[in-house]
Amino acid sequence: MTTDAVKEVRVFAPATVANVACGFDVLGFAIEAPGDEVVARVSDKPGFRITKITGDDGKLPKAAEKNTAGVAALDLLRHLGMSDRGIEMEIHKKMPFGSGLGSSAASAVAGVYAVNKLIGEPLAKKQLLPFAMQGEASADGAWHADNVGPSLLGGMVFIRSNQELDIAQLPVPENLWAAVVHPEMEILTKVAREILPTNIPMVNATQQIGNLGGLICGLIQEDYAMIGRSIHDVIAEPRRQKLIPEFYNAKRAAMSNGALGFSISGAGPSVFALCEGEETAQRAGAAISKVFDQINLENQLYVSKINKEGVHVIA
Amino acid sequence: MTTDAVKEVRVFAPATVANVACGFDVLGFAIEAPGDEVVARVSDKPGFRITKITGDDGKLPKAAEKNTAGVAALDLLRHLGMSDRGIEMEIHKKMPFGSGLGSSAASAVAGVYAVNKLIGEPLAKKQLLPFAMQGEASADGAWHADNVGPSLLGGMVFIRSNQELDIAQLPVPENLWAAVVHPEMEILTKVAREILPTNIPMVNATQQIGNLGGLICGLIQEDYAMIGRSIHDVIAEPRRQKLIPEFYNAKRAAMSNGALGFSISGAGPSVFALCEGEETAQRAGAAISKVFDQINLENQLYVSKINKEGVHVIA
Repeated sequence: MTTDAVKEVRVFAPATVANVACGFDVLGFAIEAPGDEVVARVSDKPGFRITKITGDDGKLPKAAEKNTAGVAALDLLRHLGMSDRGIEMEIHKKMPFGSGLGSSAASAVAGVYAVNKLIGEPLAKKQLLPFAMQGEASADGAWHADNVGPSLLGGMVFIRSNQELDIAQLPVPENLWAAVVHPEMEILTKVAREILPTNIPMVNATQQIGNLGGLICGLIQEDYAMIGRSIHDVIAEPRRQKLIPEFYNAKRAAMSNGALGFSISGAGPSVFALCEGEETAQRAGAAISKVFDQINLENQLYVSKINKEGVHVIA
Repeated sequence: MTTDAVKEVRVFAPATVANVACGFDVLGFAIEAPGDEVVARVSDKPGFRITKITGDDGKLPKAAEKNTAGVAALDLLRHLGMSDRGIEMEIHKKMPFGSGLGSSAASAVAGVYAVNKLIGEPLAKKQLLPFAMQGEASADGAWHADNVGPSLLGGMVFIRSNQELDIAQLPVPENLWAAVVHPEMEILTKVAREILPTNIPMVNATQQIGNLGGLICGLIQEDYAMIGRSIHDVIAEPRRQKLIPEFYNAKRAAMSNGALGFSISGAGPSVFALCEGEETAQRAGAAISKVFDQINLENQLYVSKINKEGVHVIA
């Protein structure tokens, strides 16, 4: 526990991969980098305000009520009856917008976590979930825990119900690595949502259910082969792949370099490969990156273990 | 390991509950009773034959090629190149047909398990799965492991893929009990299948996926409350319930007596309630039974722990 004596807290909230193939809409995991940094500082002036934002190209509003990190923090302060506490916030965006890596979720998580720390940690980490959700919802209008959950708690987070905020952390095999590639292009979440079907064939639902269950079993039993057999998305990927240039070439590149599975991160355009071991993840990641390079699509590669910690204080 | 010196083996294969609510098409579990008994005996006369069937009201064919237990046993013997072994089989049906309790699966499992034992156990239990599947498929034409899997292996069995016969045993909390009620009426599997939709709303698929994952998490973490929040079937139950008289009254009776969840066993007409503890299972079971009694529908109640053993030799 920190105490009120703390004058400043700097935190890091990691990027996340949601819609983990067969885990479409129900699963997300955190990676080591990139992520957002937020500083919360005690101020003599009463009330909460955002004093500085960097790395956003001027895109983010400083008005706390309109800023994801601000909304999450304010929601917490109001809940605790501490709206008049003097608190300044700095937001340092260190990850791209509209990347499919949970950028707004990371900001919301960082914002609420930093303020909770600063005021003496009245709530436990998991209790911050609804406030972070509120922050993210203010940005994209959706009420989904599949980015906020893992960015807050770390690891692989399963969402039974967004409405009920019923989530569970799954065990993650020690040697499970992710290669995430972000091609520099934007996919509007709205478009990615509209492309999804309203109805799906029963046979696809059963397949997806089988694979989701298989993935959970694979994670629990540290059965990498079962994880590999299960990472298939027959619902969203077949439709959303067309929004990402060279998607199937990138997938082939990942799989032929030993990845267990490959799919779209969130609503894209980022893609991810899950791999057994760092070497395979590096190799698969480089191969994916090369496919985008060949069409002159700038891209960034992030290779890391599944981040089991989630948001945390940094020096 | 038994050896060829064994002259006779008697085995019991348990009834099973498939389509475990949100586990529609992917989950099944075994109960303690009822179940089928099969005796396999060494014979001087070469070849495999069925010499006796009891409890079937003359409904089952004695011709091995047409009998589920026979087909499973023959399939194993052919695989091992032992078709000319002199083996006699007796089948004692101790559970109802068309009950939704995996009657043909139990026969197939008992048949192949008994013969494998008799000939010195050349294959491990799990290796018998495809032969038992073949036996059951000969009866109902479907290739589903959700009855055969748990009748063979015991416990709660998850099927990632029937086609690939990719299955996993899930951990079962120690105090998880089932109350199963079989009302004496028949539902044709064909009718129960035809009533299912070809397409389903995406939102239902996501709900079912969330609940299936939640159920697996609940089983793993021995979280009875999460099991309870997850046991909902939004795909098959809403359509199939109309085939079972008083379904929702039976469900209300189970839930108001403390059941974690209630749904249809297999394609029905049997229904089941999962409960924490024997006392609750007895109470919920009695309440379900009473609902059927009130409309003069004869029914049998079976209360047991989840059967972790599956098929086994009996005295």
